[in-house]
Amino acid sequence: MVRLEIVFLGTSSSVPTVKRGLTSIAVVRGGELLLFDAGEGMQRSMILSRIGFNKETKVFVTHMHSDHVVGLLGLLQTMSMNQREKQVHVYGPKGIRGFLEACVRYLKFGLTFPLYVNTVKTGLVIDEKEYVVRAALAEHSATTYAYLLEERTRPGVFHPDKAAELGVPKGELWAKLQRGKSVKVGDKVVKPRQVLGPARMGRRIGISGDTRPVPRLVRFFRGADIVVFDSTYSDQHAEKAAENMHSTAREAATIAKAAGARLLILTHFSARYEETDRLVSEASSVHPNVVAASDLMRIEVPYPKQ
Amino acid sequence: MVRLEIVFLGTSSSVPTVKRGLTSIAVVRGGELLLFDAGEGMQRSMILSRIGFNKETKVFVTHMHSDHVVGLLGLLQTMSMNQREKQVHVYGPKGIRGFLEACVRYLKFGLTFPLYVNTVKTGLVIDEKEYVVRAALAEHSATTYAYLLEERTRPGVFHPDKAAELGVPKGELWAKLQRGKSVKVGDKVVKPRQVLGPARMGRRIGISGDTRPVPRLVRFFRGADIVVFDSTYSDQHAEKAAENMHSTAREAATIAKAAGARLLILTHFSARYEETDRLVSEASSVHPNVVAASDLMRIEVPYPKQ
Repeated sequence: MVRLEIVFLGTSSSVPTVKRGLTSIAVVRGGELLLFDAGEGMQRSMILSRIGFNKETKVFVTHMHSDHVVGLLGLLQTMSMNQREKQVHVYGPKGIRGFLEACVRYLKFGLTFPLYVNTVKTGLVIDEKEYVVRAALAEHSATTYAYLLEERTRPGVFHPDKAAELGVPKGELWAKLQRGKSVKVGDKVVKPRQVLGPARMGRRIGISGDTRPVPRLVRFFRGADIVVFDSTYSDQHAEKAAENMHSTAREAATIAKAAGARLLILTHFSARYEETDRLVSEASSVHPNVVAASDLMRIEVPYPKQ
Repeated sequence: MVRLEIVFLGTSSSVPTVKRGLTSIAVVRGGELLLFDAGEGMQRSMILSRIGFNKETKVFVTHMHSDHVVGLLGLLQTMSMNQREKQVHVYGPKGIRGFLEACVRYLKFGLTFPLYVNTVKTGLVIDEKEYVVRAALAEHSATTYAYLLEERTRPGVFHPDKAAELGVPKGELWAKLQRGKSVKVGDKVVKPRQVLGPARMGRRIGISGDTRPVPRLVRFFRGADIVVFDSTYSDQHAEKAAENMHSTAREAATIAKAAGARLLILTHFSARYEETDRLVSEASSVHPNVVAASDLMRIEVPYPKQ
């Protein structure tokens, strides 16, 4: 069991407001930090939400608009002021490397840790022991990637009573069964499914970036537990959503519903909406489980029910 | 009479804290905005302090460390989102132009206004009708400029009764006298000093940037009404001040006192100090009139007494 939590570090579109900072979403998974976008001021939200600057960190940038990346500069600077030594990986569209290289050169961060900057393509972005992150092209006025964090399926719960009953001695053979391998006891073979419950699904979190509600995101987010989706506008400004290549809350709900997402989180709100009740209500007419993100909001992500 | 106000948009050194954003000082003079440094998050403080994004704007950068310039990116982006048309001038050390050009290229701000970026040298930086801004080299780990905003001396108050008494007819000749020019009435010459009170001194605000307390800043700030000075450390960390090329609050007071500044404002506090009482107390043992800046603090600057 690994604790998985989403913390919203900024939920405003394009410009900050009194209540909302620029877009950044932290996914804290065990001792690791996965950041999706890094709008200006996100380091201050990290301080306020006590996430800390020394976790293993990977940053995924959806697109190279300033309101989604400028916060990276302060983050890298603060990590260096803190004498961080652990490497940081940044993933993003073409331009991310040139941008960071130029800033490191002009602003003399004095980086105290290795910084690896990687250009993203669609498909598998990282392939870790317990999870992967995938990217798909979203549809915006700049090259934008939606991301999907997908935990690997874990073997089922081990039942020691069943193993004992089948005569498997405690120790190495139990561990082998728990890892999904058959073992031999005398001349009898014991298979994992005899001592394990059903395989346990991992959790999936989809993050749309700035995007129109295109059908390929339905495929990409299929089966996600949570989808966090561009909800810049309300129905009354639907034509602006089309014009500026964003989505309405209702459009976000249409994608999340079609993808079968359990929970839809609306974010990236236009500064014109002081309150988001109307957006939640519009999305709720399509999807049964909708919440609006707000700055510093935390959501713990449970394992899916078997 | 032009209203002159200092608004502190961020008062933390190097890294933000729960209570303090990164360094930026707004000087609002009439309808014009002079910004000194632009730390990350300063645009949000501008929103909170209702300064507005459409004033005539000049930005003076003291040095090219990220905690003093990154906020410029969000500022320029937000001004563009607001469809600003008025030009913006940025003044700063070598590197400011390359940095902004690289960011405009990579982040595609879509600037809606002319942006003029100027490299500063010591001496006169801008020469406006009602004021000048001068720069002097401060002493820090990067090329850093201290700035001095200096309003021009205005002619004394015009006494219409005296002009009438001397037989000067109301109208163009009064205006000429008010501008400090002699006029001829019949075969008699009337001099400005016969109808004007004493010349009225303008106001002077000195801003140190990050610096050691070097004697040349005493000369530079001589006669300033207000000096805003690097006060990163308390006495107990004086060796850190020397090591990191900053000043203690006491050192700031020593410079301000020697320069004859009426008021010293401490700012740019190390994140280790949650409260600044001790720094104020240390500075107050040297200078009679000390306040500590805090985020969103406003100080109106009165004209000096004649």
